[in-house]
Amino acid sequence: MKLAISMAETTLGQTSPNPVVGSVVVKNGEIVGMGAHLKAGEGHAEVNALKMAGDKAKGSDIYVTLEPCSHYGKTPPCSQALISSGVKKVHIATRDPNPLVAGRGIQQLRDAGIEVVVGELEEEARELNKHFFHFIQNGTPYVTLKTAVTLDGKTASASGDSKWITSEASRTDVHYDRHRHDAILVGVNTVIQDNPHLTTRLPQGGKNPIRIILDTYLRTPIHSHVVEDLESRTIIFTGSSVKEEQKKPYIDRGCEIVSLANERIGIRTVLKELGSRKIASLYVEGGSSVHSAFLEEKAFQEMVMYMAPKLVGGNAAFTSFGGKGFPTIAEGLEMEIAHLDRVGQDIKIIARPKREPL
Amino acid sequence: MKLAISMAETTLGQTSPNPVVGSVVVKNGEIVGMGAHLKAGEGHAEVNALKMAGDKAKGSDIYVTLEPCSHYGKTPPCSQALISSGVKKVHIATRDPNPLVAGRGIQQLRDAGIEVVVGELEEEARELNKHFFHFIQNGTPYVTLKTAVTLDGKTASASGDSKWITSEASRTDVHYDRHRHDAILVGVNTVIQDNPHLTTRLPQGGKNPIRIILDTYLRTPIHSHVVEDLESRTIIFTGSSVKEEQKKPYIDRGCEIVSLANERIGIRTVLKELGSRKIASLYVEGGSSVHSAFLEEKAFQEMVMYMAPKLVGGNAAFTSFGGKGFPTIAEGLEMEIAHLDRVGQDIKIIARPKREPL
Repeated sequence: MKLAISMAETTLGQTSPNPVVGSVVVKNGEIVGMGAHLKAGEGHAEVNALKMAGDKAKGSDIYVTLEPCSHYGKTPPCSQALISSGVKKVHIATRDPNPLVAGRGIQQLRDAGIEVVVGELEEEARELNKHFFHFIQNGTPYVTLKTAVTLDGKTASASGDSKWITSEASRTDVHYDRHRHDAILVGVNTVIQDNPHLTTRLPQGGKNPIRIILDTYLRTPIHSHVVEDLESRTIIFTGSSVKEEQKKPYIDRGCEIVSLANERIGIRTVLKELGSRKIASLYVEGGSSVHSAFLEEKAFQEMVMYMAPKLVGGNAAFTSFGGKGFPTIAEGLEMEIAHLDRVGQDIKIIARPKREPL
Repeated sequence: MKLAISMAETTLGQTSPNPVVGSVVVKNGEIVGMGAHLKAGEGHAEVNALKMAGDKAKGSDIYVTLEPCSHYGKTPPCSQALISSGVKKVHIATRDPNPLVAGRGIQQLRDAGIEVVVGELEEEARELNKHFFHFIQNGTPYVTLKTAVTLDGKTASASGDSKWITSEASRTDVHYDRHRHDAILVGVNTVIQDNPHLTTRLPQGGKNPIRIILDTYLRTPIHSHVVEDLESRTIIFTGSSVKEEQKKPYIDRGCEIVSLANERIGIRTVLKELGSRKIASLYVEGGSSVHSAFLEEKAFQEMVMYMAPKLVGGNAAFTSFGGKGFPTIAEGLEMEIAHLDRVGQDIKIIARPKREPL
C-alpha cells in the first residue's frame, strides 16, 4: 500500500478533476503489476496495474489507494475489471466520497465473492486526495493560503519591500504547490506592484495553474504578464460597477472576466464560480487584505507559511493577515498544526482550521 | 560525560554567577562517584564527585563538563584536588573562557602527569553554560528576548487583548526560563497594563529572577506588584529627568532606582549596569517597543518565540517587534534557527543572530 501511495503522490497536480490513485498487484509475495492514474480520461490505476499483471492477476491480492469506481464515466467501471481479472482480495486505503461511488464499488466486489479490506494507511490516502475529496463534497475548491514571513511575522518592511523574505528552497517548494493546484489567486495590487507571471517554474517543468485575479474595479494593467503572456488561462473577478467596454481589451487578449452581482467581491461567490469551472484546488498567494478576506469568511482549508530567519521590525511593516481582524484573541480562528518542518534555512508550517469535536 | 551534562543541566538557574558543572568518576567500568556544583560558594562538581569516590578515585577516569578551576576563589582550586586524588585521566567537555582559568587548569593537570582529553560533547557543554560564557567574556548579561504570538505574528489583537495567546504548556515553559535567568525585564507599559508579578511559578517552586523595569519617566504605579510584593528585588531604570523626591516612595519600598545620564534609556547602558551587578542572564518579556529597542541595538543573543495555532488578523493588531524597523528586508537582522519544536499545541522556536563566518 505504501508503494501504491507513493505512486499516486507523484501524479499530484496532473489528474484533476480526478483523484490521484495508485495500485499494486501482489501474488505469492511478489509484485506482478503496478500502476497509477495519470490523467483524467485515461486508464485508472487498477486497470493499469491489472494490465501489467496479465494472467498473473488471477488469485492475486491487489492494493489500491482509493475505492474502485463502480460507474461508467470516461472509462468502464474498475469494479468490473477487478471482478473479471479473478483477483482474490482487494485492499482499499479509503472509501470514495464521490456520491457516484460511495461504497458501491466495495459492495460490487463483495457481491462477486471477492474479499475486501478497507482502511490500510487511510489517513495518508485521504491526505493525498484532500483537494479532490473536498471538491467532490462541497462543489468548491480546496483553498490553501500561502504566506512568506520573517520571524517577527512581517511580509514586507514598512517601506513595502518584500524581496526576498524566504530562501530559494522555499520558493521552489512554492512552485511545486503551484503545480499541484488547479488555480492560483492574487489581488490586483499584487499584479500592479509585482507584475508576476504566476506560472510554475521548476527544473523539470510543471503544469501552470489557472490565474485568478480579484479586481473589484478592473485595474489590472492591460500590459501585465497575466494578461499578455498566454502561459495559462486568466480569470479576472470584478465587482458590479465595471462596464462592458472596460472589459473588451482584456477579453480580446484571451482573459475571462467574471463580474459579480455586488459592488464588492464576495469570497464565497468566487469559490462557487471556480467550483462550477471544475477548479478543485486554489492556491492563494495573497497579501494581507486578500488573506484577511478569506480569514473573515473562514473560507479556507489550509494555510502554508514559510518563515525566514530574519527580524525586520516596524510598526508600519506588513503582516500576513490584516483587515479589521478579530476583536479579541479568544475570538480568533483556532487552527491545528498539521506539519512543521525546515525547508532550506526557513521554517515551513502547515496549519488547518480546527475541526469541532464530533 | 552524558550523565555529567545531565547533572549539570538540572542545576541551571541555581549556580549564578558560577557556571553549572557536572562530574562523574569511573573506575574499571563502574561509576564510583558523581557530583555537581549546586550553588556559588559551595563545593565544585569535581570535589563533590571525588568525595563520593573516596579512595577509589586513585587510578580512575574522571569526566567533568568544564575545565577545572586553577585559582583560589571561594573554594580551593579543583586542579589541585584532582592531582592529590590520584586520578589517572581527566575528560573535559570544554575549556573555561574565564580569564582566571583559561587553559591553566588543564596545564596544571598535565604538568602533574595526568592524561587530559578535551572536547567530548563540547557543543552541549557550551550550550549549557551559554549565559556564563557570554557574561565572563563580555561583562554584560546574555539576553533572551521572549515573545508569544499567533500564527499570523500578532502579540495582541487590534483592541490590545492578549489573553491568552499560548497554551498552558508554553506558559509553564516560560516559568522554567524565568527560573533559569538571573533577571527578567519588561517595559513600564507592561507593568501599567498587566500589573504582573514577574515571578517564577512552577509546581516545584523555583527561583524568582530580579525584576528590571525600563521606565524613562518613572510611571510605574507605586501599588503595583513589582513594587510591593517583595517576592524578589526590583530595579527600575529611568532617564535623567526623574527627580529625587519622585524616587523616594519606590526606594522606601525596597526598589532600586537607576537614573541614567541621558533623557532616553539606552539598552547598552542598561546591560552594563546589570553586568556590574553580576547579573549574567536577562530574560526580556517585552512588548513590541522594548523588543525593537533591543533589535535596533542588536543587543541580544537569543530569541525564543511561542507561536499559538490561532489567526487573529488586523492591520492595527500588535506584533513582536515594532518601532521604526529596518527599511528593507535585506537590511533586517539575519538569524539562525537553533531549535524548532512543539510545546503542547504551540510551536516553540529559538533563534540567534547569525554569526559572521570566521
